[in-house]
Amino acid sequence: MITGKNYIGNKLSALGTISHKTINPKLNIENPTKFIEATSEEIEEAAQLASQAFKVYRKVSGKGKAAFLNAIADEILALDQELIDAYTTESGLPEGRAIGERGRTIMQLKSFADLVSKENWKNNSFDEAIPERQPLPKDDLRKTVIPLGPVVVFGASNFPLAFSTAGGDTASALAAGCPVILKAHEMHSGTSELVASAIIKAAEKTSMPNGVFSQLSGRGPVVGSALVNHPKVKAVGFTGSIGAGRAIFNLASMREEPIPVYAEMGSINPVVITPRAIDVRGEAIATNYASSITVGTGQFCTNPGLLITIEGDKTDDFIQDLAKKTVAIEPQCMLHPNIKAGFEKNGEIVSSQKGVKTVAKMEGEIKNNFAASQIVTVSGVDFLANAKIHQEVFGPFSLVVKSKDEAQLIEVIEALEGQLTGTIIAEKEDVENLIDIVDALSNRVGRIIFNGVPTGVEVCPSMHHGGPYPASSDSKFTSVGVDAIYRWVRPVSYQSFPTELLPESLKNN
Amino acid sequence: MITGKNYIGNKLSALGTISHKTINPKLNIENPTKFIEATSEEIEEAAQLASQAFKVYRKVSGKGKAAFLNAIADEILALDQELIDAYTTESGLPEGRAIGERGRTIMQLKSFADLVSKENWKNNSFDEAIPERQPLPKDDLRKTVIPLGPVVVFGASNFPLAFSTAGGDTASALAAGCPVILKAHEMHSGTSELVASAIIKAAEKTSMPNGVFSQLSGRGPVVGSALVNHPKVKAVGFTGSIGAGRAIFNLASMREEPIPVYAEMGSINPVVITPRAIDVRGEAIATNYASSITVGTGQFCTNPGLLITIEGDKTDDFIQDLAKKTVAIEPQCMLHPNIKAGFEKNGEIVSSQKGVKTVAKMEGEIKNNFAASQIVTVSGVDFLANAKIHQEVFGPFSLVVKSKDEAQLIEVIEALEGQLTGTIIAEKEDVENLIDIVDALSNRVGRIIFNGVPTGVEVCPSMHHGGPYPASSDSKFTSVGVDAIYRWVRPVSYQSFPTELLPESLKNN
Repeated sequence: MITGKNYIGNKLSALGTISHKTINPKLNIENPTKFIEATSEEIEEAAQLASQAFKVYRKVSGKGKAAFLNAIADEILALDQELIDAYTTESGLPEGRAIGERGRTIMQLKSFADLVSKENWKNNSFDEAIPERQPLPKDDLRKTVIPLGPVVVFGASNFPLAFSTAGGDTASALAAGCPVILKAHEMHSGTSELVASAIIKAAEKTSMPNGVFSQLSGRGPVVGSALVNHPKVKAVGFTGSIGAGRAIFNLASMREEPIPVYAEMGSINPVVITPRAIDVRGEAIATNYASSITVGTGQFCTNPGLLITIEGDKTDDFIQDLAKKTVAIEPQCMLHPNIKAGFEKNGEIVSSQKGVKTVAKMEGEIKNNFAASQIVTVSGVDFLANAKIHQEVFGPFSLVVKSKDEAQLIEVIEALEGQLTGTIIAEKEDVENLIDIVDALSNRVGRIIFNGVPTGVEVCPSMHHGGPYPASSDSKFTSVGVDAIYRWVRPVSYQSFPTELLPESLKNN
Repeated sequence: MITGKNYIGNKLSALGTISHKTINPKLNIENPTKFIEATSEEIEEAAQLASQAFKVYRKVSGKGKAAFLNAIADEILALDQELIDAYTTESGLPEGRAIGERGRTIMQLKSFADLVSKENWKNNSFDEAIPERQPLPKDDLRKTVIPLGPVVVFGASNFPLAFSTAGGDTASALAAGCPVILKAHEMHSGTSELVASAIIKAAEKTSMPNGVFSQLSGRGPVVGSALVNHPKVKAVGFTGSIGAGRAIFNLASMREEPIPVYAEMGSINPVVITPRAIDVRGEAIATNYASSITVGTGQFCTNPGLLITIEGDKTDDFIQDLAKKTVAIEPQCMLHPNIKAGFEKNGEIVSSQKGVKTVAKMEGEIKNNFAASQIVTVSGVDFLANAKIHQEVFGPFSLVVKSKDEAQLIEVIEALEGQLTGTIIAEKEDVENLIDIVDALSNRVGRIIFNGVPTGVEVCPSMHHGGPYPASSDSKFTSVGVDAIYRWVRPVSYQSFPTELLPESLKNN
């Protein structure tokens, strides 16, 4: 059922000659299907179809969009084992993760369906007319939100389902009333095609306009750049590396009509651990963090890549213990040989900086594309002196900073780039002394966690998944949770409008 | 009391050697004071002070910020006639407008004070913990918003008070908890200095940190560019031309850490007039629009620069009547010789395009810097063929498009760039046939008006003043009304946080 073709609206298409295959990282072999890169004609057709579809789709009722989203969820479930097999074959991730991530994807689609089936997410606002006001009468004014237009979404490497073809960006854009053109991630093109077929089926079953969804294949930046530069495209969603996210942001900003890019990029997710916490329950923290550092082979954007401590004998013992526990966890397969190569290269760059010492690195024979976890340490002074040490190593790798005192610990926090999360591990007795740390951390992150781990992102209204640059390109918006819909809409006011011409949700105050 | 100096925090400073004078456009002479351009040292000091002030100011309570904003309003009123004189001398605008605009400025400051004195503007969100949830417990999550950091605001030429030193951008940024560095508009440096002195007095009286506000002078882009590029600056507010706004947007986007720019730029504010409306009340519409086109010498961002009609004898009569009425209105002074020169140059560019005919242009002797109003007309075909005709002519100038039918009228709307407003002038009997026009218009604008004029922007929660590019650089945000505060904040989630460490407004669910 995987054909290797693009979906240009509801039509399978493969006009091009450039192709790629996906890789089974566990077996370290190529998977059989050839995926044909979209041509410029196919890109043009997808964009024109999306623009035409927008004229119809933007007027589909909330209940109509909800039916579409729920139908996508049903069609994804109907793909059954074929989807799970494609997922595990292309990602090296275990079946349990595939099933869990499918569940999350379904839940996301259903929660956006739920959201838009009522109108209150639009936060409509009403100001009544005051005809007798002096010196000038006040007109009736009502405000709602409307969709931006066709959206390009880039599939993420590390979430082949929940942040790819029918993932959070697509679900939120479709819920908002925006057609989506998906640039599938080259590492899981088969999984993406299966999910695209589910979206197309759902669109047909619920009578959505052709072009409400297209999916294009392509390796490297050619297809993605053409999409971002297309005048009919009005916004972009992206989850991935800082390099790729920034390149997309630059393209979008330099267009004749600049468009917004919601890119969720890297993060090292600093974790502050107080000396008292180490003293009271160092071993439990080490156990917990060894697990958080290695879960999903460290391939989460909320992976704790930086632990910030204050130096001391007990801190040294804690770091030794953490390192021992981390490297004792059985190695797992990474998503792709390129991800493994990046992990090794970036790990070496950080490890080889002045003052950085490796505490432990997993040794012995490791299978192809499996990751050797590593814990390194550095002094506060050396960390502050060298921004290269602040960079993300995507994988099971953590750096422990030993600050000389609390003032330096705060300096370390203030020197960080923007982050998705910051965590504080502390005892009750520490609380009154943590105000400055909380203050410094909140100025650098989008979510602060107390005595927990940053991995595991709850999908709920109070979740914010985003942060100051480069954690995301726009710190105002979240890519997780129902508020993600606000990336794809803009406000419009209606002044003195006849009821018949108002959008449904503005007809009654 | 006008010294020509910069305010670097609460200190008057003039280290530089470059200077400029403002112009009294009515008398066409220079005003006496020399305004000293800020040096790079002064820019650096203002940015460092703002960054230091932010650490304190971001923690000032809502009531504390409200007291500061209200004190600014009081200090502006205390400037009394000196401020009104500076305003009229530097802008050529009449005293009544100066007093009215001061009133609006005061009202804006007070409405933001009102907003932040309570906490509900933050739209806080609370998710309770569910410790017994399976398979994983749910943590307590709470979300609020926090300020971005120091903001640079560019004063607008056409609102020396309401969109300049203590205008909407400054008031909303200070209300949000962001220090402001103001780049004063070179056309009204004296007015700006007086208002800056009021802000500084208010900051001292209410014990705000030094650096919460600075104001820098400078002609041309040097000072502004240095401010936009400064790493301590985290966002920019701007009202003005597309050229200047886009240049600032480009600088901000290409920084190592890109920052958001909220630029409210040009707009031609299309007005659709149905044949039936012309038939029933053409003369009244012409009277109303002659006034809207010339009010404030056409120097409003909501000025109706484009009227879209359907061709016919009655339409021709209407256009003749509109033109006659427009040029019969007494000419008024423009803001500055440069504004006048731009008005003439851009008016000539549009008038000289293929198919554009001047219906009437005010003739006879006109005083220096006063504007000769002009009405031109063009066919739908010629309009669609030439984007040069779509450009804004800032001043009392309007283009009337004669579409051949409704389909072409919709094509004309769809061909427009993004706009602040769109207006429909129609009769009750037209309403059922207007759905496609409303649909096309809403996709191009931020506010739609029925049977009114776009000039006159009500300050209320349902007002949206912004639109697709180039009306504004970010169509999601308004620069008028209390929602303007959301430009300067970002969400932060707190997970499993001890009550003592939560921001005040998150302590109680």
